[in-house]
Amino acid sequence: MTKPNDPAEQITMSHGGGGKLAHELIVRELVPVLADEELAELGDSAIVEGAERLAFTTDSFVVQPIFFPGGDIGRLAVCGTVNDLAVAGAEPLYLSLSMILEEGLAIEDLRRVVRSAKAAAQEAGVRIVCGDTKVVDHGSADGMYLTTSGIGRLPAGNRLSPRNIRPGDAVLISGTLGDHSIAVLSAREGIEFRTDVTSDVQPLNDLTRQLLSAAEVRCMRDPTRGGLAGVLNELAESARVSIELDEKSIPVSDAVRAACDVLGLDPIFAANEGKLVAIVSFQTADAAVRALRSHPRGKNGAIIGRVEKAPPGRVTIRTVPGGRRIVDMPVGEQLPRIC
Amino acid sequence: MTKPNDPAEQITMSHGGGGKLAHELIVRELVPVLADEELAELGDSAIVEGAERLAFTTDSFVVQPIFFPGGDIGRLAVCGTVNDLAVAGAEPLYLSLSMILEEGLAIEDLRRVVRSAKAAAQEAGVRIVCGDTKVVDHGSADGMYLTTSGIGRLPAGNRLSPRNIRPGDAVLISGTLGDHSIAVLSAREGIEFRTDVTSDVQPLNDLTRQLLSAAEVRCMRDPTRGGLAGVLNELAESARVSIELDEKSIPVSDAVRAACDVLGLDPIFAANEGKLVAIVSFQTADAAVRALRSHPRGKNGAIIGRVEKAPPGRVTIRTVPGGRRIVDMPVGEQLPRIC
Repeated sequence: MTKPNDPAEQITMSHGGGGKLAHELIVRELVPVLADEELAELGDSAIVEGAERLAFTTDSFVVQPIFFPGGDIGRLAVCGTVNDLAVAGAEPLYLSLSMILEEGLAIEDLRRVVRSAKAAAQEAGVRIVCGDTKVVDHGSADGMYLTTSGIGRLPAGNRLSPRNIRPGDAVLISGTLGDHSIAVLSAREGIEFRTDVTSDVQPLNDLTRQLLSAAEVRCMRDPTRGGLAGVLNELAESARVSIELDEKSIPVSDAVRAACDVLGLDPIFAANEGKLVAIVSFQTADAAVRALRSHPRGKNGAIIGRVEKAPPGRVTIRTVPGGRRIVDMPVGEQLPRIC
Repeated sequence: MTKPNDPAEQITMSHGGGGKLAHELIVRELVPVLADEELAELGDSAIVEGAERLAFTTDSFVVQPIFFPGGDIGRLAVCGTVNDLAVAGAEPLYLSLSMILEEGLAIEDLRRVVRSAKAAAQEAGVRIVCGDTKVVDHGSADGMYLTTSGIGRLPAGNRLSPRNIRPGDAVLISGTLGDHSIAVLSAREGIEFRTDVTSDVQPLNDLTRQLLSAAEVRCMRDPTRGGLAGVLNELAESARVSIELDEKSIPVSDAVRAACDVLGLDPIFAANEGKLVAIVSFQTADAAVRALRSHPRGKNGAIIGRVEKAPPGRVTIRTVPGGRRIVDMPVGEQLPRIC
């Protein structure tokens, strides 16, 4: 993070009041960058067009550091919420952006993050229509924490759910695993290695649209915290099915694999911020892979496993050497503050 | 805040992962208390019924301490977002609740806050349908920070806006000023006084519905950070009008007035969490006051000023001794971490 010498270029407690300085910060630094008509109204609520059925989601972001190879906390907060809507089968429309800023934060860092959030929103075709800023004293936060919530329009008849999963279904991933985790870890001070891995943080709503129109999708998830292992354990549990993965089919870049070896991490537990897991019917699995691969954000898409009947709730993996082991739900926090 | 001896009764970094402990925290501690069908699905997004026009809002809450006379951060987060929707003229429907927890937080404190948030949501008739939890290391937050976002249904034809304000309009407040600020300040360690003032934190959506059906309302605001002075300066600025207040009509309890005298605070700059300011037409001002006073949450409602043509953007007050002075937008942060 930047350490400005000029005190006027730092966040102070006064930027958190309901007064003139707070107003100036919002009007001069945030509204022009985010540039949305509703946001510029500065009302207590944004007024937006609705839809018959909505998807609604929220996530807080506490990633450390706030800038990392391939992204920053602003891009992460926008993509994370866009992707939660997209994997629910919704068309993301509106986002809120709430910021908790630490006293002493360089205003230039805030500008960079807000510009990056705006760029990601444009990339995803969503509008940031409302927001909030709070300031806490130096030492009571770590630079900044962001919370985004999102509203999406759900097409009629579309209700993806783990309850739709059936034995025989195929398990797909849209690309390589672990890029986000390794990028963030490599940016942390004290980490003993350097890689050129960049985070995969990207909006997936265009990719999910393409996939949904090409295949019979049972349900989708984005494997963030807890990784592929976390998401598949949840799905196997909810759907009361077993999932068998094929390790050699799981795409992992050479650089990520090397970094994981050094760190003793397994890529299937690592966090991703621009990948989706889809469970699709056996009949449409090949069409689904083609749909993924024909999109730049899914070019390394692959079938990585299948759904079995029993034992319910269990995820197993056929390893490259040929063995078979149980993939448990990760127990603790392997990678703190990764998102 | 509680200091538990049992380590199993504290938040750890592991509660922030995507793994088993995070899952258990959510499933055992949060979902049963919040008890909403959509939330229990644990999907990436909640699926809810929509409406043609929506109000959408967000706020982060960093109040210190998290428990204070008359409320806590959970009740505050729910009421704050409900009230932002209500003063926009919307009927609040759905809330999200995202929590940033500090490592070492007593799980009992988390339970109390979540129970309180749920009770406030029931009081307001809204559903908490989605959420998120993140954990940051000890020292990187102050107990917990909450962010709520809310969606409300906007009745057709209803578009409250400062642009509707006209010279001659009446300025109303729904009750006494400053209760929230004084209650929070009195709870802080090191504050040299004790009062029995309790926070006014309460949902206002029932009161706004009653007011809207009784009077020609131009626009409403809730005077939180920055207080009455902040809100009226913003309105005078947006509407390019002048606002004149009558100090002796402004309701302030004796206990709050005494505390403000000790602390050197002016109640018109103090934060409120259960009051609204309404600008209504001159013709319906009396009906508006009656509507407020007939509701338990508006029983001290009063006309406190009027809109004048010039000078645009200026707020003045006729003081009790008979003088007149300009009420500026508050400049800095008078009351840090009040909400």
